[in-house]
Amino acid sequence: MPTTPALSAPSAGAPFDTTTIERRDLGEQDVRIDIKFCGICHSDIHQVKDEWGGSIFPMVPGHEIAGVVAEVGPAVTRFSPGDRVGVGCLVDSCGKCEQCRGGEEQFCVKRAVPTYNGREYNGEPTFGGYSQQIVVKDRFVVRIPDSLELSDAAPLLCAGITTYVPLKHWHVGAGTKVAVIGMGGLGHVAVQIAAAMGAEVTVLSQTLSKQADGLRFGAKHYHATSERSTFKELSESFDLILNTVSANLEMNKYMRLLRVDGTLVNVGAPTEPLSVHAFTLIGGRRRLAGSAIGGLPDTQEMLDFCAAHSVKPEIELIAAHEVGDAYGRVESSAVRYRFVVDVATIGASTPS
Amino acid sequence: MPTTPALSAPSAGAPFDTTTIERRDLGEQDVRIDIKFCGICHSDIHQVKDEWGGSIFPMVPGHEIAGVVAEVGPAVTRFSPGDRVGVGCLVDSCGKCEQCRGGEEQFCVKRAVPTYNGREYNGEPTFGGYSQQIVVKDRFVVRIPDSLELSDAAPLLCAGITTYVPLKHWHVGAGTKVAVIGMGGLGHVAVQIAAAMGAEVTVLSQTLSKQADGLRFGAKHYHATSERSTFKELSESFDLILNTVSANLEMNKYMRLLRVDGTLVNVGAPTEPLSVHAFTLIGGRRRLAGSAIGGLPDTQEMLDFCAAHSVKPEIELIAAHEVGDAYGRVESSAVRYRFVVDVATIGASTPS
Repeated sequence: MPTTPALSAPSAGAPFDTTTIERRDLGEQDVRIDIKFCGICHSDIHQVKDEWGGSIFPMVPGHEIAGVVAEVGPAVTRFSPGDRVGVGCLVDSCGKCEQCRGGEEQFCVKRAVPTYNGREYNGEPTFGGYSQQIVVKDRFVVRIPDSLELSDAAPLLCAGITTYVPLKHWHVGAGTKVAVIGMGGLGHVAVQIAAAMGAEVTVLSQTLSKQADGLRFGAKHYHATSERSTFKELSESFDLILNTVSANLEMNKYMRLLRVDGTLVNVGAPTEPLSVHAFTLIGGRRRLAGSAIGGLPDTQEMLDFCAAHSVKPEIELIAAHEVGDAYGRVESSAVRYRFVVDVATIGASTPS
Repeated sequence: MPTTPALSAPSAGAPFDTTTIERRDLGEQDVRIDIKFCGICHSDIHQVKDEWGGSIFPMVPGHEIAGVVAEVGPAVTRFSPGDRVGVGCLVDSCGKCEQCRGGEEQFCVKRAVPTYNGREYNGEPTFGGYSQQIVVKDRFVVRIPDSLELSDAAPLLCAGITTYVPLKHWHVGAGTKVAVIGMGGLGHVAVQIAAAMGAEVTVLSQTLSKQADGLRFGAKHYHATSERSTFKELSESFDLILNTVSANLEMNKYMRLLRVDGTLVNVGAPTEPLSVHAFTLIGGRRRLAGSAIGGLPDTQEMLDFCAAHSVKPEIELIAAHEVGDAYGRVESSAVRYRFVVDVATIGASTPS
């Protein structure tokens, strides 16, 4: 089997080794991709540290993959060598259940196969985008529009789809009042997408330190949640609140910022259970919800939307040996706004 | 001002006195109603015992009011003496805000005036249906269809509307899989309404003691929540779960019974905050929601729906002196399924 250089974590919390991993031989429906860039998602860190439990080691993280098609299997018609493509959080699903047929592969009843830290249906572990090549079924490959730089497209494959789907699903558009909690990797993209959809966007961030950026990304208002007055002033204001942080927030306080029939959607996953008073829900027919990434049709639609509306993440491009430091900065919220690894810097050898 | 016999609680948890209360002189838009029946709602008990705080004493509870129009103000065109009418949980609202204009008076931004244990906008306390007459603005009076007995209609004014609105709002119909948690005053009506809407209804009750009734009301399935296997068997089954109980349930366990995009709506108000894991919400784009009674247009629509589909509560008709005992039986879930007070039995005098 062909091999490719990769960054691999040997055990929970251990530093990355530069190593070589195998990629499967090209199947009928497979696409071999030369990976150019891979974004660093906060969930990479949770999984490398085994903070959610059940991590599989050695682990090659990375599910924000942008690159160029190197080779396609004989049954692949949608892609050709040289095409600019991306791979997100999933690399397989049953393809037959109601969810798969509806383009919601992330909810596949057989359980979709994650791009890394998962297992193929045959039991083989999956390895992600901190590597120079990947082989993926064509159904899980999306096209990156020409106007998007590959390095900018990479973070959209998780940060973009994760925020695009709830904004679309809850019908954000002209006249909608949206609040985005957190101005990190997800939040700074969510603000841009919501604004591009026509919503009036408010950022709720711990402090005002990123206010200028927030307004530049398209927010109309920016409030510090460390200020008590924020919660009074914004009471019953929003149709949709998108919570992009995985810290343990006082949900009930935020739920009171929703108007009648408003929804607070969590896309981050705090460790503590979310707690809300029944009266807060009942008093405004409010909803506390969650949303998980998105299916392939929505992922393509999101990339096309971002290209059409000049939505792109602000990235800091790093070399492979900087990943460890970058993790520390993600954990201390000291990145503006997304690290992207230039995977050409992994090792010295070229893929065989 | 005219007076009327009433059952009045002098202080929190004290037994009812038979007394006489004043009702206001008939205004331009007012309807004077000879009350015939008033349902006993669990919230009457919470409020008489001041379990939610802020109760106003003396208190005349009752917001499930059915009777006959005695007199109308000069500007009232929709009602005439002799009409069979009902009054539910609200007796006033601003009438001007977005919510009022949309027929959602329960969410009036000025705060709607509750039928009892509240204050009119002029500061006067409101007294409810455990009395023989009430004077109400015509906007808050609904018509009881001829085919509904007044005594059966009474509980629908709270138990009916509280369950009808979420079932309607979340688009329950043919093909929808609905679970109703609790087979009490609200639950036994919810099962009938959901079945009449075409849904496949499952009852989730602590035990199977009311199973025969549940199936008779239109449920297709009936499960005991005391059985651990219930939660395994019904995993990811329902589009909508209506929680009618105000006990503190393990929300997370119930949320896992929802399919992708499913919603669990609370209409009861447990004392403890509801707790749910973010992953449970995210893993199926699920929602935890609440719903509060309903506006006047929906209340009329609900009565007409119940009349058209032969939905009616099963009631136990009691005399005024039995209310204290009835409260005890509501609290111990020993009523099948709703107490209704024959208000003619309050005192001996007739309204002046």
